[in-house]
Amino acid sequence: MEANRIYNFNPGPAMMPLPVLKEAQTEFLNFHNTGMSIIEISHRSPAYEEVHNKAKSDILELMGLGDDYEVLFIQGGASLQFTMLAQNFATKEHPGSYVLSGSFASKAYKEAEILGIGKVAASSKEDDFRHVPTQDEIKLDPSSAYLHVCYNNTIYGTEYHYVPETGNVPLIADMSSDMLSRPVDFSKFSFIYAGVQKNLGPAGVTLVVAKKSFIEHSPESLPTMLRYDTFLKKNSLYNTPPAFCIYMVGKVAAWIKEQGGLTEMAARNKKKAALLYEAIDSSNGFYKGHAEKNSRSFMNVTFRLPNEELEKKFVAEAAENGLGGVKGHRSVGGMRASIYNAMPYEGVEKLADFMAKFRKSNI
Amino acid sequence: MEANRIYNFNPGPAMMPLPVLKEAQTEFLNFHNTGMSIIEISHRSPAYEEVHNKAKSDILELMGLGDDYEVLFIQGGASLQFTMLAQNFATKEHPGSYVLSGSFASKAYKEAEILGIGKVAASSKEDDFRHVPTQDEIKLDPSSAYLHVCYNNTIYGTEYHYVPETGNVPLIADMSSDMLSRPVDFSKFSFIYAGVQKNLGPAGVTLVVAKKSFIEHSPESLPTMLRYDTFLKKNSLYNTPPAFCIYMVGKVAAWIKEQGGLTEMAARNKKKAALLYEAIDSSNGFYKGHAEKNSRSFMNVTFRLPNEELEKKFVAEAAENGLGGVKGHRSVGGMRASIYNAMPYEGVEKLADFMAKFRKSNI
Repeated sequence: MEANRIYNFNPGPAMMPLPVLKEAQTEFLNFHNTGMSIIEISHRSPAYEEVHNKAKSDILELMGLGDDYEVLFIQGGASLQFTMLAQNFATKEHPGSYVLSGSFASKAYKEAEILGIGKVAASSKEDDFRHVPTQDEIKLDPSSAYLHVCYNNTIYGTEYHYVPETGNVPLIADMSSDMLSRPVDFSKFSFIYAGVQKNLGPAGVTLVVAKKSFIEHSPESLPTMLRYDTFLKKNSLYNTPPAFCIYMVGKVAAWIKEQGGLTEMAARNKKKAALLYEAIDSSNGFYKGHAEKNSRSFMNVTFRLPNEELEKKFVAEAAENGLGGVKGHRSVGGMRASIYNAMPYEGVEKLADFMAKFRKSNI
Repeated sequence: MEANRIYNFNPGPAMMPLPVLKEAQTEFLNFHNTGMSIIEISHRSPAYEEVHNKAKSDILELMGLGDDYEVLFIQGGASLQFTMLAQNFATKEHPGSYVLSGSFASKAYKEAEILGIGKVAASSKEDDFRHVPTQDEIKLDPSSAYLHVCYNNTIYGTEYHYVPETGNVPLIADMSSDMLSRPVDFSKFSFIYAGVQKNLGPAGVTLVVAKKSFIEHSPESLPTMLRYDTFLKKNSLYNTPPAFCIYMVGKVAAWIKEQGGLTEMAARNKKKAALLYEAIDSSNGFYKGHAEKNSRSFMNVTFRLPNEELEKKFVAEAAENGLGGVKGHRSVGGMRASIYNAMPYEGVEKLADFMAKFRKSNI
């Protein structure tokens, strides 16, 4: 770790790869000899368009998708997608169906519900969202416009380890917290989206990867900026895009490629997660994982301590040891260690060591 | 000018103050001793909240507004505001009224029209948008939900030099291209908004400054992310904000304060604009201004040359002289020099000199 930098376990905005930050810093006053910062150049210039289009093609390449898919860059976060999805695709006759596996999955459903065009296909709420609903639990109305899933549940620390079968119903996934963290058969999805501030870049852009055929016609009555076909037809350049965020996402995608792509990311992320789950499982119940074992996330490891006092102490002492952002979300309590692509193995090792020491001192 | 930087006359994204860029560059790997980049820190952390709230209070202070106004940060550009405004405030009984003074003014109207709740109060389209409609030209239906104006028309190079009187009808202004460039009696406006990528920061956030009483109740049927009351109640932190953009806007606002506030900005901008208008007016018709004299913008100076061949040559030779981005918008043709707050006087002087030399060599 660079002097005076910390290991940052925040759930998002989150740690970025250090080489990416350094590259951006170096060229911040003069991007590729344009004499301008990347934040000063025209979004209609060849220099910017190259950045924009390279980010798109690298992302498709990493996902193993062809040109029947399109990459869009949209503002407003995943939260704006929640209503755009419903407004673009669902109707009263063909509602959007939702699997409720956590907080954001439920928020997505709520936006369809406001419009009276949402339906629940499965929920693990009664289980306090400790598991991701299984294929058997999903009761999908075949007249649905789509099935929506949240692929990794940041707050609860659960993640899908299968791709739901939906027959002829298009599958939509919010992958905000595990996008590009592992290989998935992305071709089974009609529409994938991710707020980038966890695994991919600075908050301010939502990455959409969708089948072109799925997004080419939006309802005529929709406002311009809420139509996917506006973004599709104009290469996400109908209006000024959040250029700096897209530029950083492009750098992160290039960094993932250099490291060995999604297979390598998955290997690293599995190894990191295993270290923390081992620290929990071998703690004789001192640390209690929130997620059920077969739904455990590779991205967010959630656990509680024997009492809230110890939890506060844990957060404070972790920070003193250069381990930041380990406090869990208020709805689960306890700890959450977010270990996205950019978190190095050494950071996780340091946290696991700290967990062992803390347990011994506070048993 | 810093070695290898150019004078950038782009209309937006546009030139940023160099001290602001340098400050951001210096602290890019470690923001205020957090051990994290500003793009890595939690938007729920005290370190970020300080940035967020300081940007807000500096902006209100610069505008001379009190706490009956609120500053919001919203994604999606001014283009998303076009539909949010209509959806939050207009109805069939109380339509939104629009002054069409250019391209973006017309786009704003179009989004209300899609919903069947827009009305035209005045237009200078027949005049090829060479002037901003006068008070006398505005025929305002007093049952309007609001009157919408675009305060500076980037493409045509025109700007309001008065605040329209609207009686009891709330006044809304798109100030994307002249926000914080001069003192205005902002208290006459109920709602002001600006995509920040011209005068205030990197593309990716829209600044809204509105009367709290005007935005505190959105219609119940509206999606969460399209409601102004969501942003008002949650201090623009309902979901992850575009933190880097807001951070940069805050730095620019602080820089404007240091320079002497809006009075000083106005003095500088007037002086810069005068230099270019003088170059046009004293050219014996070689350079022809697009805007009528009493509507001329201090921000965007638009002019044509005797023929398109000379215009191409002008763009190319300007670039060779370190003067970038002077090509006009295709709908007006010719040249456009955008001289926002961050453009130094020396840059404009260099352009005026170049214009004189170019004229002599090509007469």
